[in-house]
Amino acid sequence: MRAPASVGMRLEEIDTPALLVDLESFEKNLKTLGDSLRGHDVRVRAHAKTHKCPEIARRQVAAGAIGVCCQKVSEAEAMVEGGIEDVLVSNEVVGVPKLGRLGALSTRARLGVCVDNRDNLRQLEASGAKLDVYVELDIGMRRCGVAPGEPALALAREIARSRTLRFAGLQAYHGRAQHLRSMAERRAAIQAACDQVVLTKALLEKAKIPCPIVTGAGSGSFMFEVETGAWNEIQPGSYVFMDADYARNEWAAPLPRFEHSLFVLATVMSRPAPDRAIVDAGLKASSVDSGMPGVWEKPGLVYAAASDEHGRVDIAPGVAAPALGEKLLLVPGHCDPTVNLYDWYVCVRQGVVEALWPITARGASL
Amino acid sequence: MRAPASVGMRLEEIDTPALLVDLESFEKNLKTLGDSLRGHDVRVRAHAKTHKCPEIARRQVAAGAIGVCCQKVSEAEAMVEGGIEDVLVSNEVVGVPKLGRLGALSTRARLGVCVDNRDNLRQLEASGAKLDVYVELDIGMRRCGVAPGEPALALAREIARSRTLRFAGLQAYHGRAQHLRSMAERRAAIQAACDQVVLTKALLEKAKIPCPIVTGAGSGSFMFEVETGAWNEIQPGSYVFMDADYARNEWAAPLPRFEHSLFVLATVMSRPAPDRAIVDAGLKASSVDSGMPGVWEKPGLVYAAASDEHGRVDIAPGVAAPALGEKLLLVPGHCDPTVNLYDWYVCVRQGVVEALWPITARGASL
Repeated sequence: MRAPASVGMRLEEIDTPALLVDLESFEKNLKTLGDSLRGHDVRVRAHAKTHKCPEIARRQVAAGAIGVCCQKVSEAEAMVEGGIEDVLVSNEVVGVPKLGRLGALSTRARLGVCVDNRDNLRQLEASGAKLDVYVELDIGMRRCGVAPGEPALALAREIARSRTLRFAGLQAYHGRAQHLRSMAERRAAIQAACDQVVLTKALLEKAKIPCPIVTGAGSGSFMFEVETGAWNEIQPGSYVFMDADYARNEWAAPLPRFEHSLFVLATVMSRPAPDRAIVDAGLKASSVDSGMPGVWEKPGLVYAAASDEHGRVDIAPGVAAPALGEKLLLVPGHCDPTVNLYDWYVCVRQGVVEALWPITARGASL
Repeated sequence: MRAPASVGMRLEEIDTPALLVDLESFEKNLKTLGDSLRGHDVRVRAHAKTHKCPEIARRQVAAGAIGVCCQKVSEAEAMVEGGIEDVLVSNEVVGVPKLGRLGALSTRARLGVCVDNRDNLRQLEASGAKLDVYVELDIGMRRCGVAPGEPALALAREIARSRTLRFAGLQAYHGRAQHLRSMAERRAAIQAACDQVVLTKALLEKAKIPCPIVTGAGSGSFMFEVETGAWNEIQPGSYVFMDADYARNEWAAPLPRFEHSLFVLATVMSRPAPDRAIVDAGLKASSVDSGMPGVWEKPGLVYAAASDEHGRVDIAPGVAAPALGEKLLLVPGHCDPTVNLYDWYVCVRQGVVEALWPITARGASL
C-alpha cells in the first residue's frame, strides 16, 4: 500500500487519512518511562502489539528495554525479522501451524511463550522447541490464565520437568485494571493482584522451583506493580502513543503523564451545513471500540459519529468552522486497533515529515 | 501478509483468525439479488467498499452488475487494476493529490465522482479530468450532500456548463435508513427520500438538464428504491456477505433474504473456566462498531467481549463447552470494517478451501 507522504513534506501536503507520529512527543514518552523507573530494579519489555513496528521496537531497546512482547507468533516473526533479539509471546499459542512457526523462530532469537493449560503445554513440548515458558496467572482480568496458587504451581512443576522447555516465571497482567479511571481503583486492583502473585511465588519457592521473572503491567498501572516489588519486568505498550481513552484516566504520581504522539490526519471533505463538517476518516481510519477520536486542539469541534469512510464533526455555535480541504488532527480512541489499520507511520517533527516507518506487523494476527 | 490456508485444506486445518467466504452462500446471494430485480428497469452498481476485492467485483459484473462503486480513489485504482471498467467513486474527492490520481485513472476506465460543493467542483474542473459527475443529495442521512431542490439544481447547472465534466445524474443514498429495524420504518424513510429525488428531477427537467442516472440504495432498502421508480441504479454492497447487524433487521418481501457468507474462523486458545472460552479473534479480527460477532450455529455460546487479540465466549449452563483448539465460526457484527482487517479471503466450499482471493484494496483509504 502506497505511503500517504514523502520525507520533507509539510503537514498540509500529506494525503489523508494518514497515521502520524509526532516524533518530539514520541521521544519524550520513551524518556519519561525511563525516568520514572530510575532507582527501581525492574526491566522493561515493551509491548509491540501497540505499534507493530520494528523501527519503534529498536528505539525502545535503545532506550533501555530488554526486548519486546507480542500477542501473536506472526508479530514475533516481524519483530525478529526487524532485528529484535528477545521476544516474549505474552499469550497462549495453540495449534500445530503456530507451534511449528514458534519453534522455527526460537532458533533465531530468545523466545518466550505463556501457558495456562496442561494439554497446551504438552503440545508445546511435543513441538521440540527450546523456549522460555511463563505460567499465565489470572489476577483479575478473567480472560486467559490459571488461578494463582496451587494450579499455577502444578503447571510450573510440569514445565520444570521438561527437557526442552524452561520455566521462566509468571505472566501476571491485569488488563482490566488499566482503564479503571481513578488512581485509587487502579492501585487497589494491582494490590489485590500483587497478593496473588506473592502467594504463587511463595508456593514456587517452597517447591524449590526458581521463578526468575514476574512480568506484566501496562501503561495505566505499571508504577503500582513496580512499587509492590513483586514484578521485575513490565510490559507497557500504549505509553509510546497514548490515546483518547487512556487520557480519560486520572494521572498522578507515581504514574508519569505521557503525551499524545499518535494522530490520524484527516481532511474536511464536505461542509454541508454550518453545524457540521465531514472528514475523510471513519471506521476504517480510527477504531471506535473505546470511543470516538478526539479533535486535537480545536475546542468546539467534536467528532460525533463515524461511518465506514466518514466522520461527522459537529461544530459548536460561534466556533470558527473548518474550511473544505482543511486538515484536522484526530487523537484515536484506542491506539492498538487503529495502528492495525495502517501500513505506514508518517513521522513528523515540527510539522515536517522526517521519516516513514513501515508497520510491518500490520494485520499479523496469526 | 501470508495467507492462513492453502487450496485443498479442510476447515479444521486453516490457521486462525481467518476471514472465510462460504462460496455456496456467496453465489446464492449474487443470484438472489438478480432474481429480485427481474422485471425492473434498474441497473446494479455493486459497492466494492464492502469487499475491496476485484475477484468479487468480477463475479458481480458476471452476474449482471454494470460496474462497481468505491468510496476512495485508492479503492477505485485497485478495481481498475483488477479489470473493472466502470467505477463510480460514490463520494466527494478533495485535495490535489487525490484529484490527480482520479484524473490519471479516468484515462483507463469509465470513472464517475460525486460533488456537493462549488469549490470542490472548480478543483475537479481545474484538474482537467474527463469524468462523469453526480450531484450528491442529502436525502436524510445528514452526512455529505447538498439539499435537494434548488441547491442541487444550481450545482448541476455548473457541471452542465463544464467542458471536461459531464453531469451524469444524482447520487441519492440514504445510509441511515439501511439499519432502521422494521420494514415500515425503512419504507417510510425511502419514500420521504424519493419525494426529494422526484422534486430535484423535476427541477432539472424544467431547466432542460438531462439527468440520466439516479443512483443510490443499499442492501437494507434497495427494493423500496426500486419500487418507487425514481432510482435507475442501485449500489448494494453488504448483500454479498450479510453481517450480524444486518441480520437484526426485519426482512420480508419485497426485500429478499440474503445468507451469511462471511465468517471469521477462530480457535479456542484458552479454557480457563467452565463458563468461558477464549478465542484468538478480538478487535483486530472482527470490528465491533456495530456489536459483537455472533457464534455461528452454537446455541448457548455467546461472544460477549473483545479485547485487542482475544474474544471471550460465554458458555451457558448445560451447554457442551468447546474444547481447547476447537474452531468456531463467527459472524462479524459489521462486514465492511472487518474485511478491511484482512489480506485474504479463504474461500470454502463444503468445508474445503477452493480458492484464496487477495483483498487488494485492504487499507486503501486514500
